Amino acid sequence: MLATIMYGERDVRLEKVADPRLDARAEAGGMDAVVRMLASCVCGSDLWAYRGVERLDQPRRMGHEYVGVVEQIGTNVTSVEPGDFVIAPMYVCDGTCLNCRHHVSVSCLGGGFWGSEIRDKGFADAGQGERVRVPLADGTLVPVPGGAPDPALIPSLLTLSDVMCTGHHAALAARVRPGSTVAVIGDGAVGQCAIIAARRLGAARIVAMSRHEPRQKLAVEFGATDVVECVGTAESMDTAVRAVRAGGKVGYVGVPAGGAALDIATMFPANVGVDGGLAFVRDYIPELLPDVLDGTIQPGKVFDLDLPLAQVADAYQAMDERRAIKVLLRP
Amino acid sequence: MLATIMYGERDVRLEKVADPRLDARAEAGGMDAVVRMLASCVCGSDLWAYRGVERLDQPRRMGHEYVGVVEQIGTNVTSVEPGDFVIAPMYVCDGTCLNCRHHVSVSCLGGGFWGSEIRDKGFADAGQGERVRVPLADGTLVPVPGGAPDPALIPSLLTLSDVMCTGHHAALAARVRPGSTVAVIGDGAVGQCAIIAARRLGAARIVAMSRHEPRQKLAVEFGATDVVECVGTAESMDTAVRAVRAGGKVGYVGVPAGGAALDIATMFPANVGVDGGLAFVRDYIPELLPDVLDGTIQPGKVFDLDLPLAQVADAYQAMDERRAIKVLLRP
Repeated sequence: MLATIMYGERDVRLEKVADPRLDARAEAGGMDAVVRMLASCVCGSDLWAYRGVERLDQPRRMGHEYVGVVEQIGTNVTSVEPGDFVIAPMYVCDGTCLNCRHHVSVSCLGGGFWGSEIRDKGFADAGQGERVRVPLADGTLVPVPGGAPDPALIPSLLTLSDVMCTGHHAALAARVRPGSTVAVIGDGAVGQCAIIAARRLGAARIVAMSRHEPRQKLAVEFGATDVVECVGTAESMDTAVRAVRAGGKVGYVGVPAGGAALDIATMFPANVGVDGGLAFVRDYIPELLPDVLDGTIQPGKVFDLDLPLAQVADAYQAMDERRAIKVLLRP
Repeated sequence: MLATIMYGERDVRLEKVADPRLDARAEAGGMDAVVRMLASCVCGSDLWAYRGVERLDQPRRMGHEYVGVVEQIGTNVTSVEPGDFVIAPMYVCDGTCLNCRHHVSVSCLGGGFWGSEIRDKGFADAGQGERVRVPLADGTLVPVPGGAPDPALIPSLLTLSDVMCTGHHAALAARVRPGSTVAVIGDGAVGQCAIIAARRLGAARIVAMSRHEPRQKLAVEFGATDVVECVGTAESMDTAVRAVRAGGKVGYVGVPAGGAALDIATMFPANVGVDGGLAFVRDYIPELLPDVLDGTIQPGKVFDLDLPLAQVADAYQAMDERRAIKVLLRP
């Protein structure tokens, strides 16, 4: 099959790789599935390696966001079956470990990330390819009820793999409640989804910080009540900590390149709390899915470019050059 | 009257100062009260100046924790009257500003701290003295219902001025819930109260970190299920951030001398949240008061030395030398 491989700075290629197969080894436990990809996309975090900010020790299989159709299942898989339309969260998880039971599935003790070996459960293919072997299918995949969804819904369903759940995570970490005033720093796909999430949680006022006119328009469409022209940089965390009111909370879902330190002496007098991390995507999909299926939220609008997988290199370039907010890839 | 004044390192004295009086100026608004102190105490934070860690520009009136009896009220005071037994939170607040209405009264826009001028509302005496002028009596003081309380309850009522509410704040900031596992770093009065608060909020397991046998015993009496011998130092924040489980929360209610920085790169992968600051004492007193009055919680046990105000210098020395966890002062 064809899959996307990152070789180094600005060198990403679609290449032939081994077809995924169910793993018959006893350790794999008959818990895997093979999924045919129907839609995938490029994440802002994929650009770290593309831009050379992150150095690779070896070529990397790319893509952690995809939806698709189950083609095969292992002997012990019970929650999905061939023909199911499924959403994959941005990580593999078992659904049974201590952290999964605490709804912190991104820290699954038995799981891991796409494009890598998942402990003794074998290789998990990445999402920017024609097919994916899912090592822990029951814990990882979320089947969409009601058979094949309306094709128009696929972009929004795809955002549940990562960005929509990540925006939701930011909003929850910032303790957004009905009536809250919220500032969203970042006008990319995650920031846009954070606006959707803040509105969904009942925020009364949502300030989008953006200098890019098309992104400002999308932000307003998603529910922003105010737009502030502002640069998002390494100082974003500092901006956030200083911008919140006394007792306010900062939710964050990314680390600035080069890291960041929070000064307790700034946070303490104003009772500013800081919370966040990688989103608990697998835990959030069931909560957000009904709102996507009935059209209450339409996060798929963050995709402003639609390319065939064969043009994956163009997709990276468009995002790198900020010509696209987010690029959807189809097989 | 007599009041406590800190002159500098290890130089604290009880001296004669002006008697507090109601302020007839229009700006004061007839909103003040004079309270006769019945019990006060020394706070761990008072030791910063005593030890010379904090340099004073001028002598400072000391004490921000006290309970007493209202003697006089201004013409516009409605919530307390002469004869009422009242609890003073560790700060003065108006109860009406934006932050007070958001239950973040410690950041009151019209208030301030004891022993200082409260904007145009005049001087607020400090708590380690015979009497106190309270500039914003309605917003600040909490009357205890039912007349003069049982004298045996006074120590526990006094802890509602600060330490018990501060322990509660730490537990809320750490999102303690029924069934939680909690580690408390710090075995002083606030740490002990945090144990009480964690138990009160339903924590299933409470690990007290202490190397001092009497404090370990008190911790167990308050509800600690495990005791770990551990040093509390400037690395406490780092210990906390690294000790919590994935998705765990760190609540903090003090800043290490010299400050501290939180490394986002440590917090992010484990979804560790950090929240806290100065406690919203005035907001918490009504919530905790019933549990003190009916004996459900007995935080007054943190006082292990009882001295007359005349021996205030001995009180500071005993706390400085860690001979006492917390010293109660009586007029």
